[in-house]
Amino acid sequence: MSNARLTPLAASLPSTVPFIGPEELERRRGTPFTARLGANENGFGPSPLALAAMQDADGGIWQYGDPVSHDLRQALAAHWGCTPANIVVGAGIDGLLCDLVRLTVTAGDTIVTSQGAYPTFNYHVAGFGGTIQAVPYRDDAEDLPTLIARAAETDAKLIYFANPDNPMGSYLPGAEIAAALDALPSGTLLVLDEAYGELAPDDATLPLPIDDPRVIRMRTFSKGYGMAGARIGYALGHPDLITAFDKVRNHFGLNRAAQAGALAALSDADWLTHIRAEVATARAELARIARNHGLTALPSATNFVTLDTGRDGAFARALVAGFAAEGIFIRMPFVAPQDRCIRVSCGPSHDMAQLDAAFPRALAHARNTLSETA
Amino acid sequence: MSNARLTPLAASLPSTVPFIGPEELERRRGTPFTARLGANENGFGPSPLALAAMQDADGGIWQYGDPVSHDLRQALAAHWGCTPANIVVGAGIDGLLCDLVRLTVTAGDTIVTSQGAYPTFNYHVAGFGGTIQAVPYRDDAEDLPTLIARAAETDAKLIYFANPDNPMGSYLPGAEIAAALDALPSGTLLVLDEAYGELAPDDATLPLPIDDPRVIRMRTFSKGYGMAGARIGYALGHPDLITAFDKVRNHFGLNRAAQAGALAALSDADWLTHIRAEVATARAELARIARNHGLTALPSATNFVTLDTGRDGAFARALVAGFAAEGIFIRMPFVAPQDRCIRVSCGPSHDMAQLDAAFPRALAHARNTLSETA
Repeated sequence: MSNARLTPLAASLPSTVPFIGPEELERRRGTPFTARLGANENGFGPSPLALAAMQDADGGIWQYGDPVSHDLRQALAAHWGCTPANIVVGAGIDGLLCDLVRLTVTAGDTIVTSQGAYPTFNYHVAGFGGTIQAVPYRDDAEDLPTLIARAAETDAKLIYFANPDNPMGSYLPGAEIAAALDALPSGTLLVLDEAYGELAPDDATLPLPIDDPRVIRMRTFSKGYGMAGARIGYALGHPDLITAFDKVRNHFGLNRAAQAGALAALSDADWLTHIRAEVATARAELARIARNHGLTALPSATNFVTLDTGRDGAFARALVAGFAAEGIFIRMPFVAPQDRCIRVSCGPSHDMAQLDAAFPRALAHARNTLSETA
Repeated sequence: MSNARLTPLAASLPSTVPFIGPEELERRRGTPFTARLGANENGFGPSPLALAAMQDADGGIWQYGDPVSHDLRQALAAHWGCTPANIVVGAGIDGLLCDLVRLTVTAGDTIVTSQGAYPTFNYHVAGFGGTIQAVPYRDDAEDLPTLIARAAETDAKLIYFANPDNPMGSYLPGAEIAAALDALPSGTLLVLDEAYGELAPDDATLPLPIDDPRVIRMRTFSKGYGMAGARIGYALGHPDLITAFDKVRNHFGLNRAAQAGALAALSDADWLTHIRAEVATARAELARIARNHGLTALPSATNFVTLDTGRDGAFARALVAGFAAEGIFIRMPFVAPQDRCIRVSCGPSHDMAQLDAAFPRALAHARNTLSETA
């Protein structure tokens, strides 16, 4: 036994890896996937300007990164029409969620989220001793009015709400979110996860000032900007709250080349336009493929498409295994009743073609699995 | 006011940036430094293999990194003669210290460190509500027997001890640390920060098994491996404790290219030998320069040299300002009575020559500053 005496909270927590990464799945199966469509990564890749900026910055990697991300925050402030005091940069939305939960949640505190929403947020809440109130999806979408009502009932400190939603892919117009916030309790902060914001329709944008005290918005370079492995995200909010991150954050935690890459990515609006077009094409292709094989693609405001199998969780899980057997990594990250669906990330046309070709065998695998266990 | 209700602990913490980065100092002075010798970065740079690996991996940056750092942990296990279960990889030692403190320290808990030792450790301890017991340096070195005695008196959960020491640059033979551990209370964990371990004499290595339950060792690719901006560190310890990091860590927090770079850096033993030789040359040159200008270089087991001005903190601070006026970034990170010293990182010969040339004007600046305020 180690001499380390864990805190009672730490002792109570499980040791876990919230998501098994595709590399681990590849090690278990003994061979790499040929299409990586399970983590909503953006296989169209980052802007060439961002790639060049990272490779150039690698030459100076002997230097720590700027702990206040000055240049990136200046550029983001110009992009959003706010000031750097509204912006904190962190190691992806995951890292920022950890800091936010640490700042606000301690034993006895409640947060509200949707049943089947982002597990990493729940991981952080449990990690700081908070209690999770989970509201079911309504009509396959996060139910913001009920989330807010539940927060009022439970004196919740935070509501987690993703727009567009992962894993369903749907979105709520920003105006509807703004209207719903009229009912938000004054002691409840809306954590608006906009990880897929760059890929959503324009009316998804929340039509409220960045420093609205009721909301903190989380953004990332992982999805639309195609830099998931760089680990750069940021939060936009009221300066009081943004400043508070300096109470707890790991100031020297960001990769220097990643910061340079994010700055370059932000400057390349043309590339983002290109990505949006590529993603739209892939979404349509995924819908066509799904239809051809008897599944239904749900509408998507993201770079992934949720495919309704019309069956149940056991079938969807078996279908994921069937695709894995064909070398295709996808996921089933849903809870019932949405667990009838599978989630497929958009990718280049050769990935889509591979998925199409594998569909019959994957479906046969799923049907065989179920008939064996029936 | 933001709707966010901070925890009582978070509300009590100051918003701070523990170290003002050189970029911020450059922005304040309006012009870049010409020699960057204040953050103990390794200006000799990373292995060319590491650089190539990072630039190559940048092309795949659209993918998340492996959340369990499988390949890097395998290679580190081979390097250290232990198993991957003894190793957790994190965003530099700073990030790992945060996780470790979070696992072990809560309100009412005590930790022991040296007065003037690493401020970021103290930042994390305060950040989780811990109480810091600080033991003065003895003869300009961390005083391990007294640290251990203080831990026994205060029922401390952690002792922070850096070997080699930053900011003094000295080291204790590993055998002496091992002997001192005989007195360690069974509920106290020694946090052995070996950030500079790759640059130290061979006898600095702790001659104990990696899974000794009394110690957790912290290592990094920031110093000897010249990759500070990559943000890859690791901890070595008992599997029980290492596994516990999976209770709290940000699993997807590491840059994918940085992991690839670290793996390549570890494989290039020749480059590390080259760096050790370059650093030794620079240390000797720094000692010569210091002597020529009336200062005394303290012995160093690291890639920086602590120069004793023979004066006091006010003088040392003014000398740092004098060097900054000459375009040279160095630091005075000491507390009294070690604050009579300045700390200069080793760098390529042109940086050393620039320091040498600037010394007379920097000293004159310091003397003038003191006579003006006298």
